[in-house]
Amino acid sequence: MSRIHNFNAGPAALPLEVIETAQRELTDFQGTGMSIMEASHRGKAYDAIHSEAISLYKELLGVGDDYAVLLLQGGASQQFSMVPMNLLAGEGAVADYTDSGSWASKAIKEARKVGKVNVVADCGKETPTRVPRLDELKLTPGAKYLHITSNETISGAQWKVLPDVPKETTLVADMSSDILSRPFDATKFGLIYAGAQKNLGPSGLTVVLIRKDLTAAAPANLPTMLKYSTH
Amino acid sequence: MSRIHNFNAGPAALPLEVIETAQRELTDFQGTGMSIMEASHRGKAYDAIHSEAISLYKELLGVGDDYAVLLLQGGASQQFSMVPMNLLAGEGAVADYTDSGSWASKAIKEARKVGKVNVVADCGKETPTRVPRLDELKLTPGAKYLHITSNETISGAQWKVLPDVPKETTLVADMSSDILSRPFDATKFGLIYAGAQKNLGPSGLTVVLIRKDLTAAAPANLPTMLKYSTH
Repeated sequence: MSRIHNFNAGPAALPLEVIETAQRELTDFQGTGMSIMEASHRGKAYDAIHSEAISLYKELLGVGDDYAVLLLQGGASQQFSMVPMNLLAGEGAVADYTDSGSWASKAIKEARKVGKVNVVADCGKETPTRVPRLDELKLTPGAKYLHITSNETISGAQWKVLPDVPKETTLVADMSSDILSRPFDATKFGLIYAGAQKNLGPSGLTVVLIRKDLTAAAPANLPTMLKYSTH
Repeated sequence: MSRIHNFNAGPAALPLEVIETAQRELTDFQGTGMSIMEASHRGKAYDAIHSEAISLYKELLGVGDDYAVLLLQGGASQQFSMVPMNLLAGEGAVADYTDSGSWASKAIKEARKVGKVNVVADCGKETPTRVPRLDELKLTPGAKYLHITSNETISGAQWKVLPDVPKETTLVADMSSDILSRPFDATKFGLIYAGAQKNLGPSGLTVVLIRKDLTAAAPANLPTMLKYSTH
């Protein structure tokens, strides 16, 4: 076997040690007599993995018990819809978005299907590519949240300084391509989502960090699987 | 290693030969120098697996090129919402549902959040548990679709004879717990969905068989990831 260097912009390389551990345990996970792929999602074996992954993620991000970590599916692209479905409820509710390029504009497009969106800074089509300067942000008073794309993978533009928001507005970020790549203050955010395949783990998993009080904001008639409170 | 017998009602046993093949290839998939978990979803290695799985599934179900197979996430529970979101569009649209127990009633609950639902036969709370008799079905003229749960896992009630519907109505089934367990005429159906973990493969995958013409019925402003046509 010869491992090649993997510089994919999509699914990234996993540590060989991690893959080899999974490989060893694939037919018999820690003496359970079955693969973890066959184990019940309600059983002790899977539950321990689930809880440890969540606990380590919270430790790395430096957040406490006021945050929940949700291991979801559907990619960051489904979060483009779930974020406004859950957080943009109510008469006259507005969400602020920054447009910094390809991924931010997809998030904006999906949010507009759900509710009222103000693009509070737009440099998505500028060359050279960049993210907005903090003094360009014209935040909407009373906006439910401000959404940023912390790193635009395709054009290569990253927020070096994260913005501040007033107390009534929640800071939300798509961090799919730079989560855990640098220290930052996660407690500034009410919600951070990331597809796992670039920075966190294998493809197929989407990780949402959410401040628990925000899970109460969803409309009652939202589909069960699209409500953060379900998970 | 000693494999145990796995009679889980949830994630089921996988053939040992299949797990061992995955195990051998986990660090280096067929000479690519990387795990399939690290490979690009747009690359040739993954594309071949994807296409072969779809092709074999269609062959087993005996359907032709007028059907598409979608490998999705979110479980059958997300399909409870995606089915009506995509197929129950339009002024005055109605969907017929049969209530045969726990899973059917969950599908009904989610569909009611999306549009008008008629429960055309209800034996969901009867003891002994059963599915409706064909002569009990009071189909709504012009209903967009009739939804059945082909096997109620929890109560143990299975449709032995599958119902017929008029031409303007599409037959839809949740077959999560009995798909590919018996021969049946899949071409009677416009859409069949199944969580893979019981009968098809590992947890985490949801398989949707859909007649291609039905993907055009979705409202334009549906979230992109919840539209069958996207996939």
